Amino acid sequence: MYIAMNRFKVLKDRTREFESAWFNREIYLHKVPGFIAFHLLRGPEREDHVLYSSHAMWRSYDDFESWTKSEAFRKAHARAGDSKPTTLGHPEFEGFSVIQEVLTDGTVKRAASD
Amino acid sequence: MYIAMNRFKVLKDRTREFESAWFNREIYLHKVPGFIAFHLLRGPEREDHVLYSSHAMWRSYDDFESWTKSEAFRKAHARAGDSKPTTLGHPEFEGFSVIQEVLTDGTVKRAASD
Repeated sequence: MYIAMNRFKVLKDRTREFESAWFNREIYLHKVPGFIAFHLLRGPEREDHVLYSSHAMWRSYDDFESWTKSEAFRKAHARAGDSKPTTLGHPEFEGFSVIQEVLTDGTVKRAASD
Repeated sequence: MYIAMNRFKVLKDRTREFESAWFNREIYLHKVPGFIAFHLLRGPEREDHVLYSSHAMWRSYDDFESWTKSEAFRKAHARAGDSKPTTLGHPEFEGFSVIQEVLTDGTVKRAASD
């Protein structure tokens, strides 16, 4: 499993607009092969921003990578330019490979990290 | 849903030891009320470290908080002192509230962010 996150530093007085843009977008992700789930996360509040992150769970890195080269990706990212920014700078991407998984029934799965 | 992450900057020549400590630990989490899943994540490699993160999914923030006050938490964190550190500094905690969820069937759930 692979988790793709984009971290956004959202200006404190622009969180409502930032959330609305996500809530009102067209969603294409769920039809993409290898997609498991998407979450929009609201994280800690810091001095000059609130940390948000997108959080997409994929069956594998390859599924994620294929999506980034797809028409669905292009459509999802073809937004009209915002008139006023809601964030400090650009989002910061972090991709993670799941190397151990623990489930409620006590199952422990381990995956090679490379 | 609530996602609790602890970010670790692992020294490049200590990743094997860091992973082993996780793989060999006793696991108590799966019996805790509100626990959904745990993942150990390996993230991007940077100049002087590899970013790892623990990633625990909880039904709610309250379930997470109750766990941090429990005997299961105390046991999970009562490790013997390492003879040699595997990380740069202390882990950095970040907790996230899930404010939107998209699933493979196209279901979109939205939760209040506060």
